[in-house]
Amino acid sequence: MERLLTPSYIARCAVLAMALEVSGTPKPGNIDRRHDYADTKYEDFLAAAIGVFPVLEKACHRSDIGELILAASEECVSWQPGGNTHFGAYILLFPLIKAACAGTGDMQSEAIHVVRGTTVEDAVDFYRAFSMVQVKMKDSEDLDVSDASSLDEIRKRGLTLFDIMEISSKNDIVAREWTNGFARSFKAAELLRERRDSGTLNDAIVLTYLDLLADEPDTFVAKKYDMDRALYVQGLAIDVIERRMTLDELSNRLYREKINPGSTADIIIAGIFIALLRGMRV
Amino acid sequence: MERLLTPSYIARCAVLAMALEVSGTPKPGNIDRRHDYADTKYEDFLAAAIGVFPVLEKACHRSDIGELILAASEECVSWQPGGNTHFGAYILLFPLIKAACAGTGDMQSEAIHVVRGTTVEDAVDFYRAFSMVQVKMKDSEDLDVSDASSLDEIRKRGLTLFDIMEISSKNDIVAREWTNGFARSFKAAELLRERRDSGTLNDAIVLTYLDLLADEPDTFVAKKYDMDRALYVQGLAIDVIERRMTLDELSNRLYREKINPGSTADIIIAGIFIALLRGMRV
Repeated sequence: MERLLTPSYIARCAVLAMALEVSGTPKPGNIDRRHDYADTKYEDFLAAAIGVFPVLEKACHRSDIGELILAASEECVSWQPGGNTHFGAYILLFPLIKAACAGTGDMQSEAIHVVRGTTVEDAVDFYRAFSMVQVKMKDSEDLDVSDASSLDEIRKRGLTLFDIMEISSKNDIVAREWTNGFARSFKAAELLRERRDSGTLNDAIVLTYLDLLADEPDTFVAKKYDMDRALYVQGLAIDVIERRMTLDELSNRLYREKINPGSTADIIIAGIFIALLRGMRV
Repeated sequence: MERLLTPSYIARCAVLAMALEVSGTPKPGNIDRRHDYADTKYEDFLAAAIGVFPVLEKACHRSDIGELILAASEECVSWQPGGNTHFGAYILLFPLIKAACAGTGDMQSEAIHVVRGTTVEDAVDFYRAFSMVQVKMKDSEDLDVSDASSLDEIRKRGLTLFDIMEISSKNDIVAREWTNGFARSFKAAELLRERRDSGTLNDAIVLTYLDLLADEPDTFVAKKYDMDRALYVQGLAIDVIERRMTLDELSNRLYREKINPGSTADIIIAGIFIALLRGMRV
């Protein structure tokens, strides 16, 4: 790594990670530079990525992850009309940014340390952000995030944001990164760097996305539809990898069926961010 | 305008303007989200746009345009391998950013004031940036920018950056914006806003680019090839507007012939930037 890891440099790598993720095409089912949805378009993702820069930069100096996610969500929806574009990405990026800023050289251990240090107030701010961007999901089993009394419940039970993620991790691959030491994010970063060394940036992103999709069912799809649908997507991704289906066929099918594996895209963003910090070439 | 025009907000709008310009497709002949060239790709433009953020933000606080262009050029080439992606855009963006930061509400008059206040040192720094990013062009008639002795010549003759732009304005539509009060940039901004009010963001960008192309020959094309080629492109753009040719036909032809009207793209960036500050929706 030749660049000095200043907060500004780290934040720009995070913005670039979001921009490169949404540009990677085709990323079957998700918005990319060649695919819009009716209510959200490609440019919305670019604007959201760029608009959130100051909050990302601030992450190096402030300790409260919940407050950062809340501030980022506010910027996100103020820059574009497509709604909640990067909520899952923030959950991964903020601990990773803090870990990078620590500058110890062991980003993964630092990230684990950061998430375990979150507080009850982080959990409360997270839920505020959650309801603001109207994330449509059944989250944890016993906390209804659309219910304001949940905030009292969180405080009464003394749940930290890490506790919330632990509860959610059964049904949410993004939350699971908090409890498994960001395992898939760092694995994706390695795959991205290896592929970029021998191929194009776009191929590295698309093929790593496909690997993640084949590896575990996307829980955003499971929440929006059901686990059967998530397993169906996983099966199709395996079909592509094992050459029983082309990437374009998978792509066309998921767009037609409006199945967007959004949580897998969040993990790709985290992976690109780590890979950029570790020297992956654009 | 509802947003407070902070340096950070203004700089993010400038980054977004660069990202939206390169995303607009098809912008016949230029790199866009569906078209790469062999030595420069779409993602290079995104990385360059995001990487330069801190220099754009600094423009509000510092007075020296030449130094800013030099710093921006250094960031630009450090973030991506595609070379000089935004040199012409910097020439327009920095005075416009300073004008926006002044906050007087009359951005155009402020921009005119800013460029007329440039110094000999601005000119020297500009030439340093120029030779660093190896802009391939015959610039002014009597100053060879690849020649180090030109710097002494600039100092000896007391030429400011405005003087340089005035000399260059005969053969360079970007330089001409400095001497004509940024007329085409502000006109493009108006067209963009009107079109965005009744259509998609992409269409607004593509159609306004086409208008500019039909309006005046692109001097980047004239410098890379010759004026005949620039007039040929202008004629084809008129053909598209008058429906004797489709946009896709023009697009295919210019990509095949490797004719990229880069200076027109720079003016579109300036137009998008102004339009965003004036409330154009993403």
